[in-house]
Parts: sequence; structure tokens; C-alpha cells
Amino acid sequence: MSGRKQLKLGAFMRPASIHTGAWRYPGAYPDANFNFGHLKRFAQRLEAAKFDAFFMADHLALLNMPVEALKRSHTATSFEPFTLLSALAAVTDRIGLVATASTTFDAPFHIARRFASLDHISGGRAGWNIVTTSNPDAALNFGLDDHMDHGERYARAREFYDVVTGLWDSWADDAFVRDQDSGLYFDPARLHVLGHKGAHLSVRGPLHIARPVQGWPVIVQAGASEAGRQLAAETAEVVFAAHGHLEGGRAFYADVKGRMDALGRSRDDLKILPGAFVVVGETVEEARAKRAHLDSLVHEESAIASLSIALGHDASGFDPDGPLPDIPETNASKSGRERAIALARRENLTVRQLAQRLGGYAGLAFVGTPATIADEMEEWLETEGSDGFNVMFPYLPGGLDDFVDKVVPELQRRGLFRREYEGTTLRDSLGLKRPANRFFPEPAAPQA
Amino acid sequence: MSGRKQLKLGAFMRPASIHTGAWRYPGAYPDANFNFGHLKRFAQRLEAAKFDAFFMADHLALLNMPVEALKRSHTATSFEPFTLLSALAAVTDRIGLVATASTTFDAPFHIARRFASLDHISGGRAGWNIVTTSNPDAALNFGLDDHMDHGERYARAREFYDVVTGLWDSWADDAFVRDQDSGLYFDPARLHVLGHKGAHLSVRGPLHIARPVQGWPVIVQAGASEAGRQLAAETAEVVFAAHGHLEGGRAFYADVKGRMDALGRSRDDLKILPGAFVVVGETVEEARAKRAHLDSLVHEESAIASLSIALGHDASGFDPDGPLPDIPETNASKSGRERAIALARRENLTVRQLAQRLGGYAGLAFVGTPATIADEMEEWLETEGSDGFNVMFPYLPGGLDDFVDKVVPELQRRGLFRREYEGTTLRDSLGLKRPANRFFPEPAAPQA
Repeated sequence: MSGRKQLKLGAFMRPASIHTGAWRYPGAYPDANFNFGHLKRFAQRLEAAKFDAFFMADHLALLNMPVEALKRSHTATSFEPFTLLSALAAVTDRIGLVATASTTFDAPFHIARRFASLDHISGGRAGWNIVTTSNPDAALNFGLDDHMDHGERYARAREFYDVVTGLWDSWADDAFVRDQDSGLYFDPARLHVLGHKGAHLSVRGPLHIARPVQGWPVIVQAGASEAGRQLAAETAEVVFAAHGHLEGGRAFYADVKGRMDALGRSRDDLKILPGAFVVVGETVEEARAKRAHLDSLVHEESAIASLSIALGHDASGFDPDGPLPDIPETNASKSGRERAIALARRENLTVRQLAQRLGGYAGLAFVGTPATIADEMEEWLETEGSDGFNVMFPYLPGGLDDFVDKVVPELQRRGLFRREYEGTTLRDSLGLKRPANRFFPEPAAPQA
Repeated sequence: MSGRKQLKLGAFMRPASIHTGAWRYPGAYPDANFNFGHLKRFAQRLEAAKFDAFFMADHLALLNMPVEALKRSHTATSFEPFTLLSALAAVTDRIGLVATASTTFDAPFHIARRFASLDHISGGRAGWNIVTTSNPDAALNFGLDDHMDHGERYARAREFYDVVTGLWDSWADDAFVRDQDSGLYFDPARLHVLGHKGAHLSVRGPLHIARPVQGWPVIVQAGASEAGRQLAAETAEVVFAAHGHLEGGRAFYADVKGRMDALGRSRDDLKILPGAFVVVGETVEEARAKRAHLDSLVHEESAIASLSIALGHDASGFDPDGPLPDIPETNASKSGRERAIALARRENLTVRQLAQRLGGYAGLAFVGTPATIADEMEEWLETEGSDGFNVMFPYLPGGLDDFVDKVVPELQRRGLFRREYEGTTLRDSLGLKRPANRFFPEPAAPQA
């Protein structure tokens, strides 16, 4: 292994890829949302390629898009993260397993327990992607008429994190003595009852499962707002960032790592991994052609609905084969409209192509040969744009196979990515410390 | 296969057995609560023996027993059911996977989604053990100062069941057309939005996962109270009963199946499976000696605490090697005291032996040779005491191996138990119908 800074690579997965046209791509498995066997093979391929983690996208409601778009998207059905990742834990050995769980619509006792259990079952490979759930339809599935506001959701999330990590620390690492001769299973002096009573949560504890293998599962976050960045700087060990270009990535990186400096946290204790949509070809032209074909599989009806939302303007009357006309100002998100307009101009897209890009995937993308993709990843790593990426495959299994068979070896050849796992846990892979137990910082004193 | 009525067999499991002394038994795995590999081998052995289901015991708090007892019991730590059973789903093919989930301390949207996901991952092997959670300590882990009273818990449970089954029916079985050519992933006319608003719950839906493979996962219950029996007669497909003797089992069987008659449900649509603790020996004497040794491993301090609770009287002053003295009447549960006294008299137990029996396992037990155990099971089956059993192994792995290697072949030889699975799902094994979708009872009409 070279002494170069290493890329960390997560795979951000949906069963049929995050791209809404992917299930129609030649060779795709349109039944992947129902078929665990496909997911098992994907995870095993990623593990053979030494990926840090398999990261499962999640939502707590049907995505709130117009039914004309929804009915054409494979996102309407999917596995639940804990059941899926636990099943994957049983058929993999080293890859990390990151599940999304909401601090707004679940109880900290359940969340603490489930992640601890996944960490034990997987031998220390669990990660918790903390989300506050921004989809207002989710509230209606959990008995709430109104969605909790952003500030309150973040205040609750911060307290929720304290409770969950406190519950994980219920037992000292050496609490379970299991002395068959004397009949003592655990030492009651090494058990802590949390007794939390806070502004949002009241939880007694203790957790009735031993401390996780990793101490705590790895803490992952994705919030990009002011509150989200601050929560990440205080608590996160991985941030799933979302930036369309290197400049924005570098600004975010500097901001969040700067907040860590101010808090006295080491910069190495948090890995910033933007999502990156990667399309691999033998030539740049071939990669672009693959992407264009994939985008063309986003149904026009659904695509135009996405474009209308982005523009804040009904796009159904536009000439689909013409350039994007000038759009009058509206009350819709200015940044969304400006991004759409800039994208159309930059890539010289027709209305249909722009609509299909937005309806498929329009964030950061590396589209090229293994060498050009590795060049871009290297530039992000070396200029502090990121510590690696959460890779999104354009379609499955082909897009994953291309990355694993062609891009990973190129990254390894350059000394930017591991050839073997560093250890057995997700913390080992990411180079993160095992947290001390806040209630039992030291091992038990030897008995006299 | 003979035409005889068949026994249904579940395995009611804790990682180190339900007996609190089991972790100390010769050959036991004291680390089983932390070691998924053991559980995987247990499940695979049970599947090779054609068990109907692997049923995971569960609680939502540390068991509320005195710390002197608790510290000696392996029940202080365990895997969470969904993570464990999902992992087992990936390493088994036919055995059912029954998870306990509480209607008092969880949200119906989460429960519906997780069981649907487990059912998809396992190819139709999930079962939901509906519990209302009677441990008052659980409330304190979920932000409630007072435990919900019994009647309110059951009223909520009934509504919760309606919501969960309604969410499972969100999608017609043929909703997901996945037509790659036209780009239609699902037919919106085959999607139902539940829109439930009831006395206890408000849940919009739809569930964002396809209808479970089994239509609905198998509904399991264990309540023995008046409200519990009625809920079972209305909704359950398996009842986990608890009776110390055949007479009580037959009365319960007649009562619950009679309630089904009154409701117009077929008796075959519900299987009554009492828990049965089975200790196998080459001779009856050897089996009894194994049990006596196992009971002797319940630590005396913990055992006397259990006895005091059962008697409603401090037993710590009694001569442990003497017979049970006369106990004055108290306010404690009369039935518990009477059961303890009757047990001591029937088996001529010393105070210590009685205490260790109560601290270990004191319910229905079959202790004998494969032939005497099969005789007892056959009698229960043929006299309408039960439709089978939830077997509890006294210690692991030895107690499980004894049952699988010796009792199962004897049951098969008598034509009382399958030699091959009847199909691929838990419903196939149990002989239960796949429920119709209440919103889409018929397949979609063919398009003109």
C-alpha cells in the first residue's frame, strides 16, 4: 500500500439504481425491488472490489411526485433498510452496511437497539445515516397532521443522537463476564441506566443488548443546511455531501472541517463523501452515449413533470426538440431554476433532454473512461473537495460491473484505493477510532 | 405422507435457550447472545429437521427481575428480532421466521413495512407475533411514565392489526406491471391509499413496498386473557398457548376454536401451538437427571428470588434442603402460589429444587425418551389439546440436537410430522390460506 491519501468509497444503492430510467436499461433487472438475490450479488461484487460500505437509500413514504412520474419509477417499492442490510450481513464479511433511520419518526430505543444488533450480527460493520426526514408525506404515515418544522427536527435530532449513543454505552465493554462456574453472567457495576429526560425525549434504558462491536456504529449524515452542517461537525463521522461541481465541494469541505477545528475535533475523524454518478465507457464518447441512452429511458411524461417542478413553470407546452425558451420569474426556488437553465445551456440540451436529465439524475457525475474518472476522483481528493465518494451506478448490474472491473483497478494502480480491507469493521476501513464508553472510560479494576 | 393429522412444530428460541441456567450447561455456548454463527447453525439444523418456524422471543426492556437474579441470566442481552431473522432469512430457504413486534410501542407503518420486507427477502416465510407488551419497564424506554392499561392496549392492538393488514393490501398483487417497453412500472389504478383515521391511530399510506409474498405474513398471538382470546379468535392464524397440562390445553383449544365457530372462521385457519419444554434421554431416568442437573445450574440466590415472587412470601429463610413449609395467605397471586405448592408436592421437591425449577422453566414439559415424548405429543394432537407445539430446547446446542436427531424421526415414523416441506412459504407449511386483498379481491380486468 502506498503512502498516498486513500479514497473511501461507499456505494449508494437502490435495488435498480437511483436513476429512474435504470429499470428499462438493456440488461437491467426490473424485478430487483422484489428480489433479494440480485441485491446479494451486488453486495458481494462490491465487497470483492473492497468498497467501504453498501449504503441503502430510504424514505418513509411513497415519494411525493406527480402520479404520472411516480407510476414510471421503480422507486415506488423497495426493501426496508434493516431487513435488507441484516440479510446482506449474513452473506458478506467485510463491507460496511449503512442504514438510514429517521430521528423524527422513530424511537431512540428502537434505533439504538437495531443498530447495535446489526453491528453484532455483522461483526462491526453497521453505520447509521441520521436523517430528520424532509418528506412531509411521511408525517401523515405516522399520525401527525403537520410536519415538524426544520429547526425543531434538528433540535430533536441532536438530543436523539445523545440518547442513542448513551444507550449504546449502557454496558461496559467488559460487563458480560459469563463465568459458567460461579454463575455470574454480567457484573451489575458495569451497567449504566441512562435515565434521560430532555426537551424532546424521555428514555430510561438500559439497552438490553451488549455494547456494539464498534463501540458505536459509524455516524453518517447528509444535511447541507446550516443546522445540518453544524450537526455533522459535532457528531458525524461520514458526511454524504451533494455538490454538482468541485468548487462547491471544496467550499463545503472547508466549511465543515473548519467547524470541526472550532469544536476541537480532528479533521480525520470525519470523512466527506459526495454522491457521484459514474458512467464508464471505453471512450468518453461511449460513456456519454450510454448516459444519453439511459436518460432517454426516462418517460417524457414523467420527465416534463420533473422539469416543470424545477422551473416552477409548466413545461408541457414547450417544443421538446427545441432549446429551453426563456422562463419568466416565479416564486419557485430560484436556485433550482437557475441550475436547470445553466445545465441546458452548458450541455446544449433540448427541452426533452433537459427534462430527462432532471427526471433521471442531475447531480455530480463522472462520465468517461476509467482514466478520466480516476483523474476526476483524484483531483477531488487532492484538492480537498472530498475524502472519497458515495458512488451511484447509473444502471444495474452493468454500471456496477463497469465500475468494479474497470475503475477500481485503475484507482488501485494509482495507489488511491485499497487492495485489501484494513481490518474487520467499518471503522477499520474508514480509519475511524472506536469511541470510548462515556460511562465506563476504563476497564474494570481487577478484583482483589 | 400418511393421511393422519400433522403436528406443526415451531422452535421458540433464545440464543442460549429460554432456561436461565442453560448457559452453564456442559457444552453450552455462553457467548451465543453475541454470536450470530451459533444462531445460523441452530436455524439450519431446525430447517434440516423440517420445523415450521424459528420463533424469536423478545422484550422491549431489560427483564424486570431483581438484579440478584438478572445478573445470573443470559436474558440480559440478545439480538433484536428483525435484524436477527433477516440475517437468518439469507442463510435458510424454507423455515418460517416469526418475529415479535409490539402494538403498544411501535408505529403500524414501520411494522407493516418491516414484515413485508422480511416476507419479500425470505420468499414468503415471515410471521408476526402480535404482542401488546406487558412489561411496565418498556413504557419508560418509550417516553411514557405510565403503562397503558390492559383494555386500552388491546383496543389499540385490534386497530393496529386493521391498519397493518390494510397497509399490506396497499398494492394489488398485479400492480407492478414493470413494462420496460412502455415505461410503465405500476398501474395507479391498482394502488390503494388507506387513509385510516381511528380512535388510536391515524395513518395515510400507501405502504411503499409491494404486497408481501404471502399476501400477509402469518399472524401469531399469545394472549390468554379474555381480550387476548377474542383477538386471537378474530385475527390469529397461530396461537402460542401456555398450559401446564393437557386438561388446561384442551379447555383453551375448545374455547378459542369455539369463538372461531361463532365468528364464522374455519377452525383450520388457526393453529394452536402451546409452548413445550422438551428434555430427551435414552431413558426417562436419564432425561429427568438431565433436567435436574440443568435446574441445579440456576443459581440459588436467583432461584430463591423467583420462589419468593411466586409465593408472595420471602423464601430466603426456608431450609433449602427441606420440604416447602406451609405458607400463610397473602395478597400475591393465589394461582401462582398454588401452582408452586402443587408442583413441590407432586414431584416431592426440596425448597431449593422448587426454587430452581421456577427460576429455570416451570411450564409444560415433556421429559422422557423419544417414544414417551412422541406419545405425549400425539395425545395432545389427537385429543384436541393442540395442533402442534412451540418447542423449547432446555439447553443449546445439545437439547436441540437431541430433539432433531431423536424425536423428529420418531414423529416422522409415526406419520405425525412431515419429511419434506409442503411448499416454499410459511403458509404452505402451516396449511394456511393466502388472504385475499381486501381492496383488490380480483385480478385486474384485461385491457381492451
